[in-house]
Amino acid sequence: MFLVTDLCKMKISLLIIGDEILSGETLDTNAHFISKILNENGFNINQKLTVGDTENEIINGIEFLYQNSDFIITTGGLGPTKDDVTKYALMKYFGGELVVNQEMKTYLTERYQKRGLEVNELTSLQASVPSSAEVLINTVGTAPVMWFNQNNKQLVTLPGVPYEMKYLIENLILPKLLEKFSTAFILHETIRTVAVPESKLAAILNDVEAAIEAAITTENYYKLAYLPELGMVKLRLTGIGKSQTEITANLAKWKKEIDAITAKYIYGFGDESLATAVGKLLMKKSATLGIAESCTGGFLSHLITSATGSSAYYLGSVISYGYEVKTNLLGVQKQTLESHGAVSEETCNEMVSGTLKQLNTTYAIAITGIAGPGGGTPEKPVGTVWIGVGNQTETITKKFLFDRNRTENIQLSAVYALDMLRKFIEVK
Amino acid sequence: MFLVTDLCKMKISLLIIGDEILSGETLDTNAHFISKILNENGFNINQKLTVGDTENEIINGIEFLYQNSDFIITTGGLGPTKDDVTKYALMKYFGGELVVNQEMKTYLTERYQKRGLEVNELTSLQASVPSSAEVLINTVGTAPVMWFNQNNKQLVTLPGVPYEMKYLIENLILPKLLEKFSTAFILHETIRTVAVPESKLAAILNDVEAAIEAAITTENYYKLAYLPELGMVKLRLTGIGKSQTEITANLAKWKKEIDAITAKYIYGFGDESLATAVGKLLMKKSATLGIAESCTGGFLSHLITSATGSSAYYLGSVISYGYEVKTNLLGVQKQTLESHGAVSEETCNEMVSGTLKQLNTTYAIAITGIAGPGGGTPEKPVGTVWIGVGNQTETITKKFLFDRNRTENIQLSAVYALDMLRKFIEVK
Repeated sequence: MFLVTDLCKMKISLLIIGDEILSGETLDTNAHFISKILNENGFNINQKLTVGDTENEIINGIEFLYQNSDFIITTGGLGPTKDDVTKYALMKYFGGELVVNQEMKTYLTERYQKRGLEVNELTSLQASVPSSAEVLINTVGTAPVMWFNQNNKQLVTLPGVPYEMKYLIENLILPKLLEKFSTAFILHETIRTVAVPESKLAAILNDVEAAIEAAITTENYYKLAYLPELGMVKLRLTGIGKSQTEITANLAKWKKEIDAITAKYIYGFGDESLATAVGKLLMKKSATLGIAESCTGGFLSHLITSATGSSAYYLGSVISYGYEVKTNLLGVQKQTLESHGAVSEETCNEMVSGTLKQLNTTYAIAITGIAGPGGGTPEKPVGTVWIGVGNQTETITKKFLFDRNRTENIQLSAVYALDMLRKFIEVK
Repeated sequence: MFLVTDLCKMKISLLIIGDEILSGETLDTNAHFISKILNENGFNINQKLTVGDTENEIINGIEFLYQNSDFIITTGGLGPTKDDVTKYALMKYFGGELVVNQEMKTYLTERYQKRGLEVNELTSLQASVPSSAEVLINTVGTAPVMWFNQNNKQLVTLPGVPYEMKYLIENLILPKLLEKFSTAFILHETIRTVAVPESKLAAILNDVEAAIEAAITTENYYKLAYLPELGMVKLRLTGIGKSQTEITANLAKWKKEIDAITAKYIYGFGDESLATAVGKLLMKKSATLGIAESCTGGFLSHLITSATGSSAYYLGSVISYGYEVKTNLLGVQKQTLESHGAVSEETCNEMVSGTLKQLNTTYAIAITGIAGPGGGTPEKPVGTVWIGVGNQTETITKKFLFDRNRTENIQLSAVYALDMLRKFIEVK
């Protein structure tokens, strides 16, 4: 089988160094950032290894990663304290001895003096690097960026502090990589679906997947990935290879075919969130939106306002957690609450019309349900949620029965509410 | 130096499987969650390797990780589509052949039927597992959890979908691990502070830290960790070692000392969120709470309702995103908005009294500000947020100037609003 990595003349691996990552104290976001930015520029990360701040682990890790790659990027362990051993491990691996790098020393001295900090022997230690390394000045911090190159195996070190690492990757390392190595052409197309399970999508896309697989040659590789998230599935088409023209044409063709087959489930493409997609629809109609939430407690409103520019269409919400707020602020009739309960089609209907009236919007969404863990009854078990969407002339309500935990029931309610509004706007 | 890992008889490695992580499309949070929860329970993760959805990479990865560990936990690649190859790679490594697991098949069939979904041949494929594996039913999803055990090397597979993985680790895997393997005695005490910077805490706790370090022996290890989060710092005392009595006594002593020194910053202990702590104060006073949010768009209400049992004190909110909603629903005077603007002490004050009146609650919180990225002016730059808390007799308002991105400004506003209410309730 054709290996995508054959095309890129260089395979890159990541070595993430840090006890605090293995212990779970710190979430590593560096590897994700590096992978994303390199991938967008045509490089492939083929492996990622995390080890502790121990020389042996670092050296063993380098040996393992070099079995399948020619270039390693490391993060972490470059500080001035006892836990920081990366420099020494690299010196053991690549050889040489510790020498004071004059450029580093001058840079660090000036930096500390400018900040009114003491220049001491730790500073000189920070300026000492293995003689086997080329040093690049880290203009946003104090850790040395070192570049090693032996027998066509290369390694570059980066600090673990995220804002330093991000700056250095973008401004120092990436330009050098682009200058030195040719890369494959990579293209992704993402199709975002909602309210359809992954297995159903896989079933209806079976023929397209077969066509994608059949198109793989020794020069160009293709793949369709399924990325599920609560209530939603992202479909990601990938083409990687030599022929930019062919890859672009193929991905456009398959994207069109997938669109035709799954159209009713698609809410957007690329990075567009569901809230953003719904916002676009509202703006297109110059419409406004008001919301009444009960069990979701503000989460749907929060999602709506997470889309940039939501103030153009979103006017506000009433979070009617208590019974009286439903009557006093939304005008839900006491009689309705007493006869049918808060979690009912009738109450949901009145919440929709109440919202339209009070907030004076084009559309309204209302959610009333039992998110859990408590509050369920045999008639209305935990996860029972009524969602309503409406405008001045019509309201549609639908009952859902979610079976997850509280947080997920709330998230699912918000996702399905946005989807109901999406479908409602498209035809009304 | 005493090595904590000496105490745990088993070394665990993580094998994270997924092209979408190497390409940077998806941020891996699973490894962090697993590391955290295992670490809290006395286990150590000594290495973490990420590979793509390729059988060879998975097999090579397993071989590498077994060089330094006896137990591997994998995530990812267990879905029903063509990209999901974990099952096949494991079958190659551990041997056996694919057999339909009847329990899985019954479970999946019932699950799909209950949801009104089609049971097709992909479903049967999902129920097929290597004969060399013990199967555990995944009650929150459809991917099989498999446990392999050969020559004292063990491996367990988990789905990559975070909410499934979290549930399974906590409820299925961790109990089995605790049952099977002995570990050191570990105790944590967490003290939760708000509205005080980490550097200030470090300065006032200097002596306690010295005492903690001085208590370390070859049998028992102690540490005080600072875990900062937006607007809050968790102080986590850890004792790990052989002597349960000594560790318990020492931690109780230091917890008392830290409490005495930092009392005014402390809102809770253990896992108690700020929202839960505020909820407890409200319940203690048999009081109710209403909220008016503008720039935070529902996030504060969402936080409040994330605390279990919040319906006992929280009655509801008005999210007054648009000007008219402030006047129509909260009774903020048009004159006030015109003279001082939405983001002002005067408007904030009227939002508090309007909320108390409309929602008829004991206390009210109001937030009005400019979260960004747009909307700032020289007079009222992005990050300007007025927060008010009040009851029937008194209102306190305070102006904040946050300097982060939109999401963080919103989170900080919510944190400081809860803290202001906490302090208000404690004295009023």
